[in-house]
Amino acid sequence: MKALVLERVGELTLRDIDLARTMGPDDVRVRLHTVGVCGSDVHYYTHGRIGNFVLNEPMVLGHEAAGTVTEVGANVAHLKAGDRVCMEPGIPDPSSRASRLGLYNVDPAVTFWATPPVHGVLCSETVHPAGFTYKLPDNVSFAEGAMVEPFAVGMQAAARARITPGDTAVVTGCGTIGIMVALAALAGGCSRVLISDVSPIKLKLAETYDGISGINVRETNLVDAVDAATGGWGADIVFECSGASAAIADLFKIVRPGGTVVLVGLPVEPVPMDIAAACSRECRIETVFRYANVFDRALALIAAGKVDLKPLVSGTFAFEDSIAAFKRAAEGRPEDVKLQIILDGEGN
Amino acid sequence: MKALVLERVGELTLRDIDLARTMGPDDVRVRLHTVGVCGSDVHYYTHGRIGNFVLNEPMVLGHEAAGTVTEVGANVAHLKAGDRVCMEPGIPDPSSRASRLGLYNVDPAVTFWATPPVHGVLCSETVHPAGFTYKLPDNVSFAEGAMVEPFAVGMQAAARARITPGDTAVVTGCGTIGIMVALAALAGGCSRVLISDVSPIKLKLAETYDGISGINVRETNLVDAVDAATGGWGADIVFECSGASAAIADLFKIVRPGGTVVLVGLPVEPVPMDIAAACSRECRIETVFRYANVFDRALALIAAGKVDLKPLVSGTFAFEDSIAAFKRAAEGRPEDVKLQIILDGEGN
Amino acid sequence: MKALVLERVGELTLRDIDLARTMGPDDVRVRLHTVGVCGSDVHYYTHGRIGNFVLNEPMVLGHEAAGTVTEVGANVAHLKAGDRVCMEPGIPDPSSRASRLGLYNVDPAVTFWATPPVHGVLCSETVHPAGFTYKLPDNVSFAEGAMVEPFAVGMQAAARARITPGDTAVVTGCGTIGIMVALAALAGGCSRVLISDVSPIKLKLAETYDGISGINVRETNLVDAVDAATGGWGADIVFECSGASAAIADLFKIVRPGGTVVLVGLPVEPVPMDIAAACSRECRIETVFRYANVFDRALALIAAGKVDLKPLVSGTFAFEDSIAAFKRAAEGRPEDVKLQIILDGEGN
Amino acid sequence: MKALVLERVGELTLRDIDLARTMGPDDVRVRLHTVGVCGSDVHYYTHGRIGNFVLNEPMVLGHEAAGTVTEVGANVAHLKAGDRVCMEPGIPDPSSRASRLGLYNVDPAVTFWATPPVHGVLCSETVHPAGFTYKLPDNVSFAEGAMVEPFAVGMQAAARARITPGDTAVVTGCGTIGIMVALAALAGGCSRVLISDVSPIKLKLAETYDGISGINVRETNLVDAVDAATGGWGADIVFECSGASAAIADLFKIVRPGGTVVLVGLPVEPVPMDIAAACSRECRIETVFRYANVFDRALALIAAGKVDLKPLVSGTFAFEDSIAAFKRAAEGRPEDVKLQIILDGEGN
Repeated sequence: MKALVLERVGELTLRDIDLARTMGPDDVRVRLHTVGVCGSDVHYYTHGRIGNFVLNEPMVLGHEAAGTVTEVGANVAHLKAGDRVCMEPGIPDPSSRASRLGLYNVDPAVTFWATPPVHGVLCSETVHPAGFTYKLPDNVSFAEGAMVEPFAVGMQAAARARITPGDTAVVTGCGTIGIMVALAALAGGCSRVLISDVSPIKLKLAETYDGISGINVRETNLVDAVDAATGGWGADIVFECSGASAAIADLFKIVRPGGTVVLVGLPVEPVPMDIAAACSRECRIETVFRYANVFDRALALIAAGKVDLKPLVSGTFAFEDSIAAFKRAAEGRPEDVKLQIILDGEGN
Repeated sequence: MKALVLERVGELTLRDIDLARTMGPDDVRVRLHTVGVCGSDVHYYTHGRIGNFVLNEPMVLGHEAAGTVTEVGANVAHLKAGDRVCMEPGIPDPSSRASRLGLYNVDPAVTFWATPPVHGVLCSETVHPAGFTYKLPDNVSFAEGAMVEPFAVGMQAAARARITPGDTAVVTGCGTIGIMVALAALAGGCSRVLISDVSPIKLKLAETYDGISGINVRETNLVDAVDAATGGWGADIVFECSGASAAIADLFKIVRPGGTVVLVGLPVEPVPMDIAAACSRECRIETVFRYANVFDRALALIAAGKVDLKPLVSGTFAFEDSIAAFKRAAEGRPEDVKLQIILDGEGN
Repeated sequence: MKALVLERVGELTLRDIDLARTMGPDDVRVRLHTVGVCGSDVHYYTHGRIGNFVLNEPMVLGHEAAGTVTEVGANVAHLKAGDRVCMEPGIPDPSSRASRLGLYNVDPAVTFWATPPVHGVLCSETVHPAGFTYKLPDNVSFAEGAMVEPFAVGMQAAARARITPGDTAVVTGCGTIGIMVALAALAGGCSRVLISDVSPIKLKLAETYDGISGINVRETNLVDAVDAATGGWGADIVFECSGASAAIADLFKIVRPGGTVVLVGLPVEPVPMDIAAACSRECRIETVFRYANVFDRALALIAAGKVDLKPLVSGTFAFEDSIAAFKRAAEGRPEDVKLQIILDGEGN
Repeated sequence: MKALVLERVGELTLRDIDLARTMGPDDVRVRLHTVGVCGSDVHYYTHGRIGNFVLNEPMVLGHEAAGTVTEVGANVAHLKAGDRVCMEPGIPDPSSRASRLGLYNVDPAVTFWATPPVHGVLCSETVHPAGFTYKLPDNVSFAEGAMVEPFAVGMQAAARARITPGDTAVVTGCGTIGIMVALAALAGGCSRVLISDVSPIKLKLAETYDGISGINVRETNLVDAVDAATGGWGADIVFECSGASAAIADLFKIVRPGGTVVLVGLPVEPVPMDIAAACSRECRIETVFRYANVFDRALALIAAGKVDLKPLVSGTFAFEDSIAAFKRAAEGRPEDVKLQIILDGEGN
């Protein structure tokens, strides 16, 4: 079938490839409709590797996907052909030690779409475990369905934060994930979010949402801004989504005594942290790795109108223009939150 | 000063009384503006007692209060004369064992307004610890300020539930507290609330809020309704706000495996609970007693527009009509959520 | 193979039966060595049913088992032939919704040994998923291995209690499970356990353990005893293991403000609970259903010498005397904590 | 009264000083019996400052104290003259925002003995809030009572870790605090503790306790040792008590997926942390600042015999030899865990 294949660093082709996906009794077959372009897809395209995951042979990209079920396995009860769905791209071993603890996202045996050597889904169809395939509510579009994957990271961050209703949150870093986290934090019970970045364009975009205030750290000291906003007490929760050492250096000056820091952004190297400052406020620090058990919750909040992801689609490309989509994504325009590729013109 | 005094069961007078409230260095003096009529006020009026608290001498009613600071003690830094405020009516011993654990609401030494023998605040002014006095944000009215107290019960319930963002909640009982809990649950991260009652008028009122669906248990079986809404899985959280045995009997049929039940409603007598059913789903059951550390969070959510209490004010009475207010409250009209009394015509 | 078969209520035979257990690649074959007699085994023997589980055809009893691995499936890495093991008797669907949340014990699809229509393991050998088979440390005997199953209920109760180191616990009910819970609570961080019962024999046995004090509720009022022991503050945690209404009626008089009640005992019918009293102390109530993810932890504590189950074996029977073992168990002698049956004379 | 006064860096004198401590109604007067020498006392002696706390005028040292009540204030009910007690050296503002949340240890207004400019208690008597004064059980000596303060740090670490019974813990750093943490972890539910250090003398001392195994990181790679001990899975909890970058660099290689790291040791400067590694195992990181609400729990565990601090007293000095005690403490002999000074020869 036709697919967007990353042949090697910097070289994408749209060509036929044999993906040989066979159905099992617990699987569904899905015709892909919309697939988002993720920073990790772009990173494999531009660098050929992420950490220990190295592109050694051609790989289909894409893991933020929505489509339509075309066939269901014999044991599948909750889905049927024709259902509009989105999919969780990581498949764990359900019997692993981590999975048995409810932590399937940290199962070392997880296979994840578009992570070498596993192919992604920028192609016409795929086969997926029904248990990791979620029916889209009628009022959720394919475009939103394909955004559930990145939003799920925000949901995981919000869940691990254990928000107390009415909390004040700070999000450091206003990239795609920062915005996702901010929206999940608001939907998850925070009364307001202060989000920081160096890009006024990104901040302006985030501020179109009720409850989000932007702080341009080129112009304003973040510690001062948080102090001013919280009467000197500090934020209940700080979500670190920048991966930048400058932000990490100040985390424990902006969180309140007894508050929580959630580490979402991934610095490439170890970064200095002020442990004594963290201790002096006796903070709890949570970390986030992808997500587990949140896709259904994400869809519930989107369907309820508590989260609106539609304004975050910055550009939509036809499948035959996918390479152009990746070239634009690689430019890293500050106004681009999410680019999506349509593989199937039908429906929405 | 003039006050609404409950002389004995069934007899209210509006008369002068000497309340002798002296200022300490950590206190503020507040001119009352709006005071809500609570079910407990009405209960003292109609029955003269609640549990072990018995009216033995005349007592001023009222504990849901907002007003204006007129004087501040020497140590008070966060408030000044002229500030519009609301007040937390229970004053604990800050050095008690419970307070030191952060559980000041269960400190046996708490004194609570309008709970014999402590006078309430249906009077022109009061003196209160500044630490339990909260500045109203500019966009929060006195009417809303006086609703923070009952809403705080909802906040406490939502906090103790430890909502995971996107949870589905059921609230059993659509009285004032049931609605408060439903609003706090939605603001606190739930994607939707199913609320049950026997009164179509109350349900209709609750359903004017986005995210709340009413279930008339005279017409529909609640277990079936929850099964239908959750695909047979059950609700993540059930807030029991009715105190009714019929609702309590079904709690563990409507909560999901591993879900949470929050007990808010207070039955007068012990009520049969199906412990084996609770165990078979391994539920967590939380209980709620008033509230602690939530007034500021409640105000943050109201100011942010995430909670709108204004539609819940069903009637407003001048101070000189307070007895009429209590008579109406004692009727228990299903369309009445909250009646309020205005003690001071200025401002809002 | 030879097995102890419950033919119908009250009729046990030791006879050959074809159990047809086939090995899969993730399974192990285990020659049984020691199997304990559980109250539920006895209840099927004397009543033919427990709740909705009804004996409709002959069933092999026994689910507290230890033995020796004789064969391992192709995928099994952590076990080998000759390993001494104990086994978790409930096998969930690892892909179920509950399992994915880490709550495999409340998966409705769990199959559980000696629960109709599933056969137990009072027989010479069985086949079991390797993932639910645990290697016994060298210093843990088969007798102790076969006690891990009932002790696991205590471990689950202790885990769900979320003990803070140094907590004072009360255990109501000094039966087998009460003692297991008391031992798990002590090993799990409690400083002391007060255990209540009406049987002086049972209490005396429990008191042979350091840290456990017995309270005979025929002679001493439990509320008074707990008040005396805690300076009137109450117990941090109360584990209800009796299932008796008298104990349940007093739960919220013996737990401290903000404390925790863990419901372990299963009353046959709904039992009156004083919800208002629970709320006035704002207790958390946890429930327990079997166990999940605790067998390895139980073995770690036994191997470390922090839990000594050996004194709880009250009698040991040869396989050919199993019917006598059940007859004695059915007598319910107060001095009997655990009776065990040896299926294989080799090793210990 | 006579006191051990730190006049300036490096200069201690034993001399009379006027400490002017007046009794309030909630206070007790205590004649000091035993006071331990803490690393922070020594650090003020050798460096004159810790962080922002700078010795600007003579200060009495000592904050690990036990003694005998000689007088009680009018409101004090739980203590009487003659009671043997130990004392919590930090006094918070009970009405502060942090205190109201139950986090009085992070109240910025805490005053703490022997932290400039607050005098300590290496003197004959002191006056202290009764609420922070704890009666020693009869079987707890003054020497043990004076060890409750450093042990309380271990208790706080164990409490914040939220141990699940049977957890395997690693403690990095086998100094006084590392050992205290190890003992609290074992008493608090861990099945075993691996403790690492470079000093064989310290490790040998720690290993005299059941359940503690030492790892000399000069000889053995800690990651390998933990892998071997846990079958490659990792430790459930890692308590970082060294403050050393080398230990901090490996934290997320030795904790299991979904495990917990507790930061106790305080590096002087920010230290590189591998956030990506922490995220890939989705660890929770807790921090510890002194302690709150643990003195009573510590005493309960000591009295119960679950924690034995007596072997940790490495040397005992008469009051007139206190300067010698400090000189020896400043040597930092690896075999010295705790040196204590006796101010009052009576009793034990």
